[in-house]
Amino acid sequence: MDIKYMQRALELARKGTGYTNPNPLVGAVIVKEGRIIGEGYHQLYGSHHAEINAFNNAVEDVRGADMYVTLEPCSHYGNTPPCAEAIVKKGIKRVIIGLKDPNPLVEGRGIKILEDNGIEVVTGVLEEEGKKLNEIFLKYITTKLPFCIMKTAMTLDGKIAAYTGDSKWITGEASRRYVHELRHRAAGVMVGIGTVLADDPMLTTRLENGSDAARIIIDSSARIPLEAKVLNLESKSPTIIAATEKADKDKLKALEEKGAQAIITPLKDNGVDLAFLMKTLGERKIDSILLEGGSKINYAALEAGIVDKVNAFVAPKIIGGEAAKTPVGGAGRAYMADAIRLQAIEVHRFEDDIMIEGYIKREN
Amino acid sequence: MDIKYMQRALELARKGTGYTNPNPLVGAVIVKEGRIIGEGYHQLYGSHHAEINAFNNAVEDVRGADMYVTLEPCSHYGNTPPCAEAIVKKGIKRVIIGLKDPNPLVEGRGIKILEDNGIEVVTGVLEEEGKKLNEIFLKYITTKLPFCIMKTAMTLDGKIAAYTGDSKWITGEASRRYVHELRHRAAGVMVGIGTVLADDPMLTTRLENGSDAARIIIDSSARIPLEAKVLNLESKSPTIIAATEKADKDKLKALEEKGAQAIITPLKDNGVDLAFLMKTLGERKIDSILLEGGSKINYAALEAGIVDKVNAFVAPKIIGGEAAKTPVGGAGRAYMADAIRLQAIEVHRFEDDIMIEGYIKREN
Repeated sequence: MDIKYMQRALELARKGTGYTNPNPLVGAVIVKEGRIIGEGYHQLYGSHHAEINAFNNAVEDVRGADMYVTLEPCSHYGNTPPCAEAIVKKGIKRVIIGLKDPNPLVEGRGIKILEDNGIEVVTGVLEEEGKKLNEIFLKYITTKLPFCIMKTAMTLDGKIAAYTGDSKWITGEASRRYVHELRHRAAGVMVGIGTVLADDPMLTTRLENGSDAARIIIDSSARIPLEAKVLNLESKSPTIIAATEKADKDKLKALEEKGAQAIITPLKDNGVDLAFLMKTLGERKIDSILLEGGSKINYAALEAGIVDKVNAFVAPKIIGGEAAKTPVGGAGRAYMADAIRLQAIEVHRFEDDIMIEGYIKREN
Repeated sequence: MDIKYMQRALELARKGTGYTNPNPLVGAVIVKEGRIIGEGYHQLYGSHHAEINAFNNAVEDVRGADMYVTLEPCSHYGNTPPCAEAIVKKGIKRVIIGLKDPNPLVEGRGIKILEDNGIEVVTGVLEEEGKKLNEIFLKYITTKLPFCIMKTAMTLDGKIAAYTGDSKWITGEASRRYVHELRHRAAGVMVGIGTVLADDPMLTTRLENGSDAARIIIDSSARIPLEAKVLNLESKSPTIIAATEKADKDKLKALEEKGAQAIITPLKDNGVDLAFLMKTLGERKIDSILLEGGSKINYAALEAGIVDKVNAFVAPKIIGGEAAKTPVGGAGRAYMADAIRLQAIEVHRFEDDIMIEGYIKREN
């Protein structure tokens, strides 16, 4: 057993980023006598799993070889037949697994099939890396709720815009490019109507071969103008208007005629019920949301408990201004001791910008 | 010539941090036949320079040896006789210098004395490290103005307090300990009267063997209560009240009777003229200021052009609040393109806190 093969399998798995939702990212490496003889990864939702691609790519007979796979092979018939059975049939001798599948449809059954057929199984190899790689899948498969990343960008003095509202640009090119990678990776990108009215963004992924996320606009009264860019795009992904009973029925009809989808949620604090919205989006197979909200929506999202991860960009510039907006507004919490805490903090550099990544600590 | 000896000299120089103001930090290493035979550094303002300490600590005859010194040896009689002459007398063969002395009283004369006496001189070795080490000295000796570090601490959503004003604590222990190191290093620590009224801080250095900085309170109307902690401390350093004509004469007298010093500046925007204050503090041999201001003072300081460096702590927590204060308030600049920019960005970790360090880019 060699962790370098699992590292390679993780590297392969990452290549599927943005194309496999709501499936996990999986990579597989077949090793015989110290040589890699086959590699594969899950490339696209609905197509072959990593194990099958590795078999198809094998350059030698795989009988008696080891297979390194980042996630427990599946045991059920979904879009494709179960991989565990294929592994048995191919005569693999030993299977080294990164992460056990948390999918209630698998639940150790993949491993059982392998072991029942005399295959040696090792699990938990580079498990933490595997978990991080599939954090979206792990949440979605166990809760049916989207994994939500709150992305913010502020100056070194905590502003998301000047007091005039001007915010072009806070971060540099490298940061903005990374945001497009985040959009590519996410199944949905979510903003408030305020952002649409102020900036009229397209919310598409400007990357070569990038996939657009669904565009979700929190717009309780359906105020979005019919000429807004998000309603007039060439994109394979839908624009979804999340509204409430406050929205005008005719306006909703007009939006749907323009190809937008509407989700009507109950009223919560006189606005969209974000928890209800997440549930509905999850039912529509949206496994991940990149929240690019303004300060009001961000606060509501945090207090609604829908945010899992924060990507906070900090640009090394100072704008000042008592009246300038910050990443998270709303009422706010009264005492520092009650602040929402983040954990597993990582710091990344994008040229001179700093990006702080962390996961919301749940109070239990 | 070996840069490892200069690295050692820089390491020695650093040991004087906080004790040599307004003198520079200097380290010296004497090397003979590949062996270090003497080391020294400038330990305390008014006492021996690094070169003399290295001679005094030498364990062998220094005749014919090389000397590595982080800063050009002095050529003038100050508190101590010129080091360049001592080096000549001791029979050093070669002197390797980090940084030429920018002190107008030296201006290459140290090097000239050495060369006129047949000593080989090499300059510019690890010059950038040397400059950074003595950034305070370099500004002060050339401008007679204090080098000003603006220290801020905010949440990941840009707040220096909750909307209630509560700010205990934003950063963790490691960050707060580092702030005491900054206070130890600085000749003055400066806050606004708002901070004194809200938090009643001591502004002392809570470090073993730490030296207190002078406490400078920006207080245009001399509103500080006579029972404020900064006026009732056991400390070798003075408390300075920076006020204006708006201050009551009797109150100023009462403050002086309590041992505080007052500096009266002209009125600027109805408050203290910070540029004038810096000039006065420079005249009083305060070579460095740690500005721990609130959002109003920070903005005024930036716009007055007195800030050289920013140390911005970011804690991985979110407090929210439209009304919560940010590190830099005031009117603010109107457009992002006109933001104050920082350069030479470094990122440091203090446990889970991130500290972003940068230098104000001067527009020319």
